[in-house]
Amino acid sequence: MSDPLPNAGLFTLRDFSLQVGGVVPEPLLVYQTYGTLNADKSNVILYPTSYGAQHGDIDWVVGPGRILDSSKYFVVIPNMFGNGLSSSPSNLPEVIRGGPPPVFTHVDNVTAQRRMLREVFGIERLALAYGWSMGAQQALHWGALFPECVERIAAVCGTAKTTPHNIVFLEGLRAALMTDPAWNGERFTSKPERGLKAFGRVYAGWAMSQAFYREHLYLTLEYSDLEDFLVRDWEASFLRRDAANLLSMLDTWKRSDISDNDLYRGDLKSALGAIRAKTFIMPSQTDLYFTQEDCLREAQLIPQSEFRPIPSIWGHRAGNPSKHPEDQLFLKNAIADLLCAKQPRPDF
Amino acid sequence: MSDPLPNAGLFTLRDFSLQVGGVVPEPLLVYQTYGTLNADKSNVILYPTSYGAQHGDIDWVVGPGRILDSSKYFVVIPNMFGNGLSSSPSNLPEVIRGGPPPVFTHVDNVTAQRRMLREVFGIERLALAYGWSMGAQQALHWGALFPECVERIAAVCGTAKTTPHNIVFLEGLRAALMTDPAWNGERFTSKPERGLKAFGRVYAGWAMSQAFYREHLYLTLEYSDLEDFLVRDWEASFLRRDAANLLSMLDTWKRSDISDNDLYRGDLKSALGAIRAKTFIMPSQTDLYFTQEDCLREAQLIPQSEFRPIPSIWGHRAGNPSKHPEDQLFLKNAIADLLCAKQPRPDF
Repeated sequence: MSDPLPNAGLFTLRDFSLQVGGVVPEPLLVYQTYGTLNADKSNVILYPTSYGAQHGDIDWVVGPGRILDSSKYFVVIPNMFGNGLSSSPSNLPEVIRGGPPPVFTHVDNVTAQRRMLREVFGIERLALAYGWSMGAQQALHWGALFPECVERIAAVCGTAKTTPHNIVFLEGLRAALMTDPAWNGERFTSKPERGLKAFGRVYAGWAMSQAFYREHLYLTLEYSDLEDFLVRDWEASFLRRDAANLLSMLDTWKRSDISDNDLYRGDLKSALGAIRAKTFIMPSQTDLYFTQEDCLREAQLIPQSEFRPIPSIWGHRAGNPSKHPEDQLFLKNAIADLLCAKQPRPDF
Repeated sequence: MSDPLPNAGLFTLRDFSLQVGGVVPEPLLVYQTYGTLNADKSNVILYPTSYGAQHGDIDWVVGPGRILDSSKYFVVIPNMFGNGLSSSPSNLPEVIRGGPPPVFTHVDNVTAQRRMLREVFGIERLALAYGWSMGAQQALHWGALFPECVERIAAVCGTAKTTPHNIVFLEGLRAALMTDPAWNGERFTSKPERGLKAFGRVYAGWAMSQAFYREHLYLTLEYSDLEDFLVRDWEASFLRRDAANLLSMLDTWKRSDISDNDLYRGDLKSALGAIRAKTFIMPSQTDLYFTQEDCLREAQLIPQSEFRPIPSIWGHRAGNPSKHPEDQLFLKNAIADLLCAKQPRPDF
């Protein structure tokens, strides 16, 4: 099933039912690997994707000497359903495109990832599940749904269950996109350029903190002024994306809840309490939607957790610090500490 | 010029030029008064309107025994330009509607207000300028532009200069509205219902804090769930408004800067330093766009200021607490303290 390229793969999921509904016959999971799997398969890091991102957007984190060190670890980035590489509205088989779009949940994402790791590589256990934002949500799903398969979790700027305020933020994004003339009430009849730009502008207020803007940090990113930042960074980022895919991933985000499944039946306390991995909960201190208060509340319910907020004014972006070395260093040191930590439970 | 009704008035501004540009021959200022002006005209409270609001939306604050006590004070609510009662895109004379829309600034608002008070009532000095949000911006403009005319200021949840992050929030709102099919690049060709709903949904995430949603306080407002709150409160609020007026007031908000005028020429420190009124700066501790950090920075530059943040999880709405008694009491006590305070400067 794996791609002929050594580091990229396309895994077809046979007999796979989506958790909530909708039919995707044999969904595809596209992944990318970095580094070398060792003989006892004990050096695996899983790094799921974040909202709107494909593996190439987030793999700056991976490399020799980087936050996820591919000279020591075998790092696998699985592309989330809906992101345009794995099964997504944009690449569904023609025969089912006319029907109602499938609904993907993180249960679908992590179930597919686990099958891929097992069937392609024979991997049963992760040394670390690392993720930022929706990636953190997937890492925490691993911890709750497959407790015996995850030794460590680093959940950077993400909660296991999406909070009500976060849902309101997402509803604002969705409404802005669907206001576009190309939305016919069921689907987009053409590329919704206005809507994608509005989506970017709304997002821009949430993704970084008030202090980021107060200190004019966008100027450090080589934008000439605030408007230039909104146009060339935020509008441009989303104009590159497929609108139906953005709605699909947004729905996955909105539904994130590690207890919303047959194992935990809505009992979040039990689900968080079932995580056996050594877990670093790492919000940004200035994140406006995955707030540190919300992350702390979840951390307090995870037995082997440590709360390590990132001291940064980059807001949510502190957790994906491709251009700010201080936050990079903070993450790198934290992951080094976490990987050194012996798993304290006798069953590992 | 004043209306025959005793408490409502319509003041026509002759020979009035807008600060930035655009032509409105003889703009109208509509106001409402409460209580009785005393003989020496020393009991005047000016209470300018906030974004999207008309006097009837915010006058619950005024009344015997309320935050602004109309049994003792003569309270005047001037409607901001753009709000649909005073001169606004929606009520411009037919002859100039086709041209570029006028740009209203708070300098225009407070200049018009001062002329109205003087010419209609012979009022030269305010005992208090009280305002919430854009009303606070106007109150602070009074303090900087007419220092000798304002004894006290209560600036609730507002800054004298709109911050960069606040501008990004506003840009998100504007983009959502202009994404509507009814926007033709210059104006709305019909009522942009989709856009107004999206506007409300985006706004909802900003107006209250994350904690407000975490604690499900919308249920205390008699909404059945989060979606019901978004639809019946936020979408409905903006569906009642005129879209061009919303854009006009948004532009006024974005441009707010008490130093952007001939007196201070961009020197915010001088402008804040020129305020002679005893000033209470009263942000909400959880306001997401007029943050307490930004308010504190301005308070530190106002000579006779006192920083009194509202301890509330209602976010920006803490400053307009029509339905939450604790914040009401906090404001009422603060205003009582402020009105008791003798003006410390000898020149009053």
